[in-house]
Amino acid sequence: MSWELSASVVADLARGAAVLGTGGGGDPYIGALLARQALAEHGPVTVVGLEDLPDDALVLTVAMMGAPTVMVEKLPSLDEVVAPVHALAASLGRPVTHIACAEAGGVNSTIPIAAAAALGLPLVDADGMGRAFPELQMVLPTLYGVTASPLAFADEKGNTAVLSTVDNTWTERIARVACVEMGCSIMIAGFAMSGTTARDALVPASLSACLSIGRGIVDARAAKTDPVAAVVEALRGREVFAGKVVDVERGTTAGFARGNARIEGTDDTLTLSFQNEHLIARTGDDVLVTTPDLIIVLDAESAEPITTEGLRYGQRVRVVAAPSDERWHGPEALAMVGPGYFGYEMPSHRFDGTVEVAA
Amino acid sequence: MSWELSASVVADLARGAAVLGTGGGGDPYIGALLARQALAEHGPVTVVGLEDLPDDALVLTVAMMGAPTVMVEKLPSLDEVVAPVHALAASLGRPVTHIACAEAGGVNSTIPIAAAAALGLPLVDADGMGRAFPELQMVLPTLYGVTASPLAFADEKGNTAVLSTVDNTWTERIARVACVEMGCSIMIAGFAMSGTTARDALVPASLSACLSIGRGIVDARAAKTDPVAAVVEALRGREVFAGKVVDVERGTTAGFARGNARIEGTDDTLTLSFQNEHLIARTGDDVLVTTPDLIIVLDAESAEPITTEGLRYGQRVRVVAAPSDERWHGPEALAMVGPGYFGYEMPSHRFDGTVEVAA
Repeated sequence: MSWELSASVVADLARGAAVLGTGGGGDPYIGALLARQALAEHGPVTVVGLEDLPDDALVLTVAMMGAPTVMVEKLPSLDEVVAPVHALAASLGRPVTHIACAEAGGVNSTIPIAAAAALGLPLVDADGMGRAFPELQMVLPTLYGVTASPLAFADEKGNTAVLSTVDNTWTERIARVACVEMGCSIMIAGFAMSGTTARDALVPASLSACLSIGRGIVDARAAKTDPVAAVVEALRGREVFAGKVVDVERGTTAGFARGNARIEGTDDTLTLSFQNEHLIARTGDDVLVTTPDLIIVLDAESAEPITTEGLRYGQRVRVVAAPSDERWHGPEALAMVGPGYFGYEMPSHRFDGTVEVAA
Repeated sequence: MSWELSASVVADLARGAAVLGTGGGGDPYIGALLARQALAEHGPVTVVGLEDLPDDALVLTVAMMGAPTVMVEKLPSLDEVVAPVHALAASLGRPVTHIACAEAGGVNSTIPIAAAAALGLPLVDADGMGRAFPELQMVLPTLYGVTASPLAFADEKGNTAVLSTVDNTWTERIARVACVEMGCSIMIAGFAMSGTTARDALVPASLSACLSIGRGIVDARAAKTDPVAAVVEALRGREVFAGKVVDVERGTTAGFARGNARIEGTDDTLTLSFQNEHLIARTGDDVLVTTPDLIIVLDAESAEPITTEGLRYGQRVRVVAAPSDERWHGPEALAMVGPGYFGYEMPSHRFDGTVEVAA
């Protein structure tokens, strides 16, 4: 199935993507601006379902790498968005046929729209995570043997680079230090894969899901029903906390927005720990949910998703936990994105409170 | 004029290169090992004078980038040396015809020999500086509009990258942080230029000069004459100090070996300030000589050149100042490599004590 993506749906799609972005993926408003500009200049983008991808398609993911806190002040241009695709295509020596999202998240669900529009290429209705994660190797294609490398990146000044590495960890390490030096926000293209591989490795229909979640919020507001409940239902998740943001401690270190936020509820205080995305939600020693499942902070009334860099004292919020793609719960996946990877000595806690025992 | 470079001359060439390396360019012994291995495996290298370069030659410089202090412990392999040349050639889309040295300095005069041998390519009898400097944009080709970019680099693990930047400063910045992340010592290839440009922009006959300086030291030792005097004569320089190393303060910061050394003479104490290479020589407030002219530390008896990372307490040394290529004294060049660039608020002092007044 394919559909036309035009400027009119970008706001809803970006909102839904910010929900799945679990606090990361950047400000959906900024991402939407860029996508709308590209669609206005180049016309609508064709979105192609994974089932309709030709086996021999050459699919690239396009994304912003860096601290979303920085991107708010350093808006990317369309030139910057397409530069890494051109650099990678030249390095691969064959034409790119489809653009895909590496993750679902405000900016990183809309930048690929801008890239597809500007390049005149179709966009795949899928992404590499079904949520957002902070490091570039943290995509399901990694589990299928797809490497980020060769990876191209570009900054707003016109600098580009193509990395060819021995593994995704080295791609992340080298690209990350370059990213910091280049101003903490760069555009990347990588994870080149065939249509056949993309069908196996990506999370299907996730752009459609973003759009549907974003529309569900707007529809619930219009119908004067609870939009947070609409999100919970769409994601088959559960609401785990409600309260007021009383403290946000945040730093931009090593190219990431890291920190902790405290949310004061009626009886308890919830602590959220994040690295671009929310990783751990706990009340005292009681862990409610952890990565890889989704921890989503929504405005208590409007269900507008709040990114980690958007957290402010006094915000009334509700926190939703939701299941991630089941493939994130395998042992290899948990080693890559579980709490232990981020330095938290605890098992993974699923959205419903189940504790995962290591294999 | 062309000549055959075989393993038997490598030690003398590396010794002479370490003299011109002014403390930087890495341990000549290590560089010589690698070149000898390559020559043993692949046979001698043809060294071609600039006058014999075809106008349409594609010349690349090959070098080690990083802290020489690290390279002593992390020896490069031949694979690592040729990897950036292959990566850059693939990116340029045409075959490389000649290899050149970016600088004259222990390792960076011998790594290009290893690269040329392993690639079966001729080596140009020239280099980009006529001495060594710590940052990659600091070559005479920069003054002729040749950019380092596209620049390829590789590490011993098999990671490679090709940078395409807006200027040499960005090439330096991005490559430097990647270099630090990759272990503080990488192999680079860049400054692609035609034969016509190489003829204008490089320092002619500098490999021959290295060999002749190295041989002059050995001949003087054999003849029981003063080998330091042989160096002074060969470089048309002057001996500015003699004494004992009493203090070396050194750090490996931001990918460089930086520090100060104090040498106690009969009446005075000389302070040498270095960033990979010796930059400033002074006794108290009296500046004797500064970059871009050459400050060379030699063993007092044998005239064996001592690199900045080889400086040790108790060494008896003699310090020689010598003129650099005259092109380093133009205003644009002084802005790039004069004392001010390195944070020393003083005019350039030539080897003979002349103070250069800014234009």
